[in-house]
Amino acid sequence: MTSASTRDHFEHLLPPSWRTQVSAWLAEDTPSFDYGGFVVGEAPREAFLLVEWHMEEGDTFEPVKHVATVRGKARHLLLGERVALNMLARCSGVATKSKQIKDQARGYGYKGIIAGTRKTTPGFRLVEKYGMLVGGIDAHRHDLSSMIMLKDNHIWSSGSITTAIKQARKVGGFSLLLEVEVGSEQEANEAIDAGADIIMLDNMEGDQLVDVAHRLRDKWYGKRKFLFESSGNITENNLQERAINEIDILSTSVVHQSVQHIDFSLKIQKPKDV
Amino acid sequence: MTSASTRDHFEHLLPPSWRTQVSAWLAEDTPSFDYGGFVVGEAPREAFLLVEWHMEEGDTFEPVKHVATVRGKARHLLLGERVALNMLARCSGVATKSKQIKDQARGYGYKGIIAGTRKTTPGFRLVEKYGMLVGGIDAHRHDLSSMIMLKDNHIWSSGSITTAIKQARKVGGFSLLLEVEVGSEQEANEAIDAGADIIMLDNMEGDQLVDVAHRLRDKWYGKRKFLFESSGNITENNLQERAINEIDILSTSVVHQSVQHIDFSLKIQKPKDV
Amino acid sequence: MTSASTRDHFEHLLPPSWRTQVSAWLAEDTPSFDYGGFVVGEAPREAFLLVEWHMEEGDTFEPVKHVATVRGKARHLLLGERVALNMLARCSGVATKSKQIKDQARGYGYKGIIAGTRKTTPGFRLVEKYGMLVGGIDAHRHDLSSMIMLKDNHIWSSGSITTAIKQARKVGGFSLLLEVEVGSEQEANEAIDAGADIIMLDNMEGDQLVDVAHRLRDKWYGKRKFLFESSGNITENNLQERAINEIDILSTSVVHQSVQHIDFSLKIQKPKDV
Amino acid sequence: MTSASTRDHFEHLLPPSWRTQVSAWLAEDTPSFDYGGFVVGEAPREAFLLVEWHMEEGDTFEPVKHVATVRGKARHLLLGERVALNMLARCSGVATKSKQIKDQARGYGYKGIIAGTRKTTPGFRLVEKYGMLVGGIDAHRHDLSSMIMLKDNHIWSSGSITTAIKQARKVGGFSLLLEVEVGSEQEANEAIDAGADIIMLDNMEGDQLVDVAHRLRDKWYGKRKFLFESSGNITENNLQERAINEIDILSTSVVHQSVQHIDFSLKIQKPKDV
Amino acid sequence: MTSASTRDHFEHLLPPSWRTQVSAWLAEDTPSFDYGGFVVGEAPREAFLLVEWHMEEGDTFEPVKHVATVRGKARHLLLGERVALNMLARCSGVATKSKQIKDQARGYGYKGIIAGTRKTTPGFRLVEKYGMLVGGIDAHRHDLSSMIMLKDNHIWSSGSITTAIKQARKVGGFSLLLEVEVGSEQEANEAIDAGADIIMLDNMEGDQLVDVAHRLRDKWYGKRKFLFESSGNITENNLQERAINEIDILSTSVVHQSVQHIDFSLKIQKPKDV
Amino acid sequence: MTSASTRDHFEHLLPPSWRTQVSAWLAEDTPSFDYGGFVVGEAPREAFLLVEWHMEEGDTFEPVKHVATVRGKARHLLLGERVALNMLARCSGVATKSKQIKDQARGYGYKGIIAGTRKTTPGFRLVEKYGMLVGGIDAHRHDLSSMIMLKDNHIWSSGSITTAIKQARKVGGFSLLLEVEVGSEQEANEAIDAGADIIMLDNMEGDQLVDVAHRLRDKWYGKRKFLFESSGNITENNLQERAINEIDILSTSVVHQSVQHIDFSLKIQKPKDV
Repeated sequence: MTSASTRDHFEHLLPPSWRTQVSAWLAEDTPSFDYGGFVVGEAPREAFLLVEWHMEEGDTFEPVKHVATVRGKARHLLLGERVALNMLARCSGVATKSKQIKDQARGYGYKGIIAGTRKTTPGFRLVEKYGMLVGGIDAHRHDLSSMIMLKDNHIWSSGSITTAIKQARKVGGFSLLLEVEVGSEQEANEAIDAGADIIMLDNMEGDQLVDVAHRLRDKWYGKRKFLFESSGNITENNLQERAINEIDILSTSVVHQSVQHIDFSLKIQKPKDV
Repeated sequence: MTSASTRDHFEHLLPPSWRTQVSAWLAEDTPSFDYGGFVVGEAPREAFLLVEWHMEEGDTFEPVKHVATVRGKARHLLLGERVALNMLARCSGVATKSKQIKDQARGYGYKGIIAGTRKTTPGFRLVEKYGMLVGGIDAHRHDLSSMIMLKDNHIWSSGSITTAIKQARKVGGFSLLLEVEVGSEQEANEAIDAGADIIMLDNMEGDQLVDVAHRLRDKWYGKRKFLFESSGNITENNLQERAINEIDILSTSVVHQSVQHIDFSLKIQKPKDV
Repeated sequence: MTSASTRDHFEHLLPPSWRTQVSAWLAEDTPSFDYGGFVVGEAPREAFLLVEWHMEEGDTFEPVKHVATVRGKARHLLLGERVALNMLARCSGVATKSKQIKDQARGYGYKGIIAGTRKTTPGFRLVEKYGMLVGGIDAHRHDLSSMIMLKDNHIWSSGSITTAIKQARKVGGFSLLLEVEVGSEQEANEAIDAGADIIMLDNMEGDQLVDVAHRLRDKWYGKRKFLFESSGNITENNLQERAINEIDILSTSVVHQSVQHIDFSLKIQKPKDV
Repeated sequence: MTSASTRDHFEHLLPPSWRTQVSAWLAEDTPSFDYGGFVVGEAPREAFLLVEWHMEEGDTFEPVKHVATVRGKARHLLLGERVALNMLARCSGVATKSKQIKDQARGYGYKGIIAGTRKTTPGFRLVEKYGMLVGGIDAHRHDLSSMIMLKDNHIWSSGSITTAIKQARKVGGFSLLLEVEVGSEQEANEAIDAGADIIMLDNMEGDQLVDVAHRLRDKWYGKRKFLFESSGNITENNLQERAINEIDILSTSVVHQSVQHIDFSLKIQKPKDV
Repeated sequence: MTSASTRDHFEHLLPPSWRTQVSAWLAEDTPSFDYGGFVVGEAPREAFLLVEWHMEEGDTFEPVKHVATVRGKARHLLLGERVALNMLARCSGVATKSKQIKDQARGYGYKGIIAGTRKTTPGFRLVEKYGMLVGGIDAHRHDLSSMIMLKDNHIWSSGSITTAIKQARKVGGFSLLLEVEVGSEQEANEAIDAGADIIMLDNMEGDQLVDVAHRLRDKWYGKRKFLFESSGNITENNLQERAINEIDILSTSVVHQSVQHIDFSLKIQKPKDV
Repeated sequence: MTSASTRDHFEHLLPPSWRTQVSAWLAEDTPSFDYGGFVVGEAPREAFLLVEWHMEEGDTFEPVKHVATVRGKARHLLLGERVALNMLARCSGVATKSKQIKDQARGYGYKGIIAGTRKTTPGFRLVEKYGMLVGGIDAHRHDLSSMIMLKDNHIWSSGSITTAIKQARKVGGFSLLLEVEVGSEQEANEAIDAGADIIMLDNMEGDQLVDVAHRLRDKWYGKRKFLFESSGNITENNLQERAINEIDILSTSVVHQSVQHIDFSLKIQKPKDV
């Protein structure tokens, strides 16, 4: 996890139920007997957590770095080793990629929000969203219960954007933000008028997107407050053209899906007397 | 999931507890109220499951393919949509990459086993191993309880390879295979003599590896049965040099870690009367 | 549940995990054997769900009303009877009280939002929030993960309102609303300037509250969008003086805590042939 | 919790599974990230648990009382605060009301048992029954598995009171008490004869109830041992007429349903150096 | 399960949580993939449930009996086979032994209750108690929450039998029976006087036991109602001397601990077309 | 547990999920209130764990042995007492019987493996398999996911032994052993040729079994490696004739099913000052 400032304790975000989740992961890896544990026993051991960096040729930096030391009983270190490394490898991969994409966007002069998506690994969202936060980007809505997004299907079912928003507000109330995906300037106007907090501008790109965004902001200036979001196939390759400052939020799964993991390993130190 | 022959029903591998796991994933995505569900209601809907292929320029093949049709109540389709797609995207990515690596190895004339590893996403192993099987490769040991692997730390703790194997057999019995990681021909001999089923040849490559494997097979011919495994940083880039037929098993996490996902989407069909 | 319009299907809000919760409640009431179930067996039965209204003397309305008919096996009806009635009695009580308070406020000309709180029965929040929605009021934030509220302790810990808001935004991002509890006009200004979405005006009442709210709205008109919330000991007795239209949200636990339950009962019909 | 004598440690009643239940309540309130926790961090803090009494005008007693001090990390105090207060508010409300009703009955000279019912909040029964015990009344049967009660439906299904009791005894054995609800003196005689331990006298009040109870006791004196229970709409308003000493048990949900909660609050103390 | 009359549906005793328990047992037997299930697939199959009786030489009765037919998909039958047979084998063993011991006692003229104990297999009590009921004996108290038993340690801790009973009644109330283990006639008198429902007469046998029981009954005739229980090392070998009609309850773990299981097997029928 | 050498720490086999299982067992025994715990309180106590040996007449050895001392709060000792003893009684019974059978077989000169089966108590397999290991025998396959066994039904479904093995290998891969149950020498040859690791020789006994085993070993010498297993109704009574050294594995449920438990008891010591 490369980008966390030393002052931010992201671990304070973890809910009490976090331990239950870790227990389930350990149970997945040792459903019944721990045969290896019987062989190594419970002698106290020290292990080095190492990270291997993917270096380019010609790099002078040390490719393997000792990042932490873990102490415990031999069999406990081995029981937790693979689960912990599997988690770290993925979480750090997400954090690293998130930081890269953010830095790239900032390099293009983009001042808005870079955000992830809900396209996370089932059962592993907390870790992947955590990686986004460590990497310095926005984790976007956590789940279906913590922000409302209305898409085409919600709109048909209700009859109109206005009705869909009204229905959603009836249950979501004031405490949840409400985003609406629109396909035209006209739809955007309807959504803004009906009180949407975020407008996802679908099927618009480049100059058209800039024009529409400008007109909408002018029209509603001082009357409504809203954000524009753009999403869909944003990658490092097209980030420059997508990073338009008229858009408040660029959301992309590229920071957490199919991401290069970081190579962590745990090296249990051989005691001198063994 | 590109490679499954039409005769293999991999879904018959799923244990009864599979449903419990899916329920937990759904709960992760909707911890409390389903606000969108309130908006769409329970009207019957039909949805197309589409796959988007990453095509090269000049391809004539249709880039989006309709692979399945799902029917259900509107809000149920939306409740399950993201969870299902997240799972499919990753599982199919693993299957596709597994098949690619296997085909590549077969292209080099490799006749042995290509296998995955335990470097899977915590809580998601069943799906990733499933993808490996669909892709036609070996899923390798499922967890710490279903095959025994003895590494350096187990060997120090016991005093010798022979003692470690003896200890492991005492509890693992005849019904579990036992693999030992060795760093030299001498250690390999000790492990084979003590009854190891699989020998992981560490720190050996190329001609040296071939020579050692030949000598070991000759020495123990008709006396012991064992397999050689080679692992560690096997990727598509070095597969040709690593695919040595003297090695029975090549295991690599490249087939399931940092794998490109497959782009699935679910398109709920707008009914004519809406 | 008295107030739901016939078009709103609040049951569509229930997440898939709802069934798990109901199973836990049934297990609480029958931890081991169902002795009564052995006596009644599984004969098909029909049961009337009745509601008993607390009528004043002189009322001409029928005090007991048949509101639903339930059919099932005798022992299943009895197994679920008490659990279902206990849930209904409380949920309907909350819905009824919510509607009463809302109607009362509307009677005073209040146009803002009446909302509940997180002061719900542990393990039973979904039902109590559901009752608020059925009663036509706002359920307020569902839990600590779905809206951020910063109080005095968060502010001390961070050093200032501005820093606390900045820290919260770093992890909560754009998708969660952020409320700040302030004790003075100066603090309110700081919170609004730092981007708070909702301002909880603490320790202010009556004319002072109106004045402060006016000045804040004037000052930030067209620059910031925010809502004012007032809370704390709002009951039917003081609702008239608290229902100030300058305040957007009145939140009160009076709609769901210590609420009069509704008397439901289940009357299993004696079949003619028994 | 007003009435517990200092010598009784009701907390010794809690089963080991109690902690699991508390964990589930915490998970309800923080399903994913603890954003506020990130802001406050883990600095050590001290918090005062306060109770606010609903005082009548003219009271001289201090309306807010410091009843306990809690110490812990800032974010842990805030994570547990609402859950703990919600539990305490309800449990103490039940205890207080239980004690009031009991004292009232004793004031009328009633010497029998005041008991609660199973009309508790789903998932929260342990706490509500705990409150009854703290308040000095009888918690009545805990669930369907710990005492058998036969009502009209059980009796029809079996053909007669005698048969129903016989069936119930076949599975409940000697270790569970058996109560039968009867509607007439004749039915009571049948139930007593068949060995019922407790007779619920339904549809009888006042003098008729006294007469029936007397005749039944005389008739079975020295032959059968049994208790009389009376239930149904017993409240503080009619307690005097219902508190008949011929009745051994008066059971009422008034002590735990729609009960006024007690106002607890947790005030985290601002450290001097902050 | 040999002794159940055709009219008793003991399966109506099973609580809704029973299915959860069965799911956990299935998960124990198939923690991850169902490899055999992949081989057999989901073809419909019919299976015969057979019981093998342990016959003495010279018996003419058929030693294997077809007791039920099960139908389902091939892999489902195999997934559930071992779990179901393991359960049946043990449950039927308990039922059979329970019936044998009861019949033996009745043969000696014993008219009291034969009961089991809480010495059951952890996690499997429901099944073992079920077997006792099917075998026609009393299941005794189900758990620590459904009947109170006070032994020496409770009595020391409280200071006296009388105080211990008083403390227990304070929380157990009227709805739970209370048993006290006593070592002398004097202690029995104290327990009866203090209101114990059942007296466990420890360290008394034969004539002494008969004498004590007689004197106690005479002394308390018409004043107190109570039962005598005797327990401890009651087996088929000493049942005749222990089956004293002055004792109301003989409890013994011999009916459910170290019991001979019944040999059930499931024979999947080969379809003609395979 | 009589046979464990002092150097083997079988407790190191226990997975982290073991504690969860113990919690469930405690919850089974105290589903709601711990009434006895209220009476004894939390005074510190010391308890002796005793074992009672079933001695023959004339034995001079002390029949009751103090094997451990447990310390804790009074109510905690009593809460855990019955659960712990129930577990110990069964686990030690399995260990003792396992050792007896193994010693008996060794006495007949048998050099092969004595193994248990999957015929264990549902939910309690870990403990029973643990007992087998402590008793010095092989626990055999733990569950359906950790070794593959193909029986008649798998073979029909696939069409032939060869096809069934091929199908199983496709999913089980190299890391799981594969056993095939055969009914004739011809089938055994087919299974060995197709790569089965273990051959279960069904329906063969005595000289025929010896002859078949000899011929198969000769035929495949140096070509295939496999083990022979024999199972079915092996008990102490027929062990001598079944213990044929040509058979590598004798598996029998006699070591863990219907086994005589060991009589453990826990004697809480009365403190001097009580």
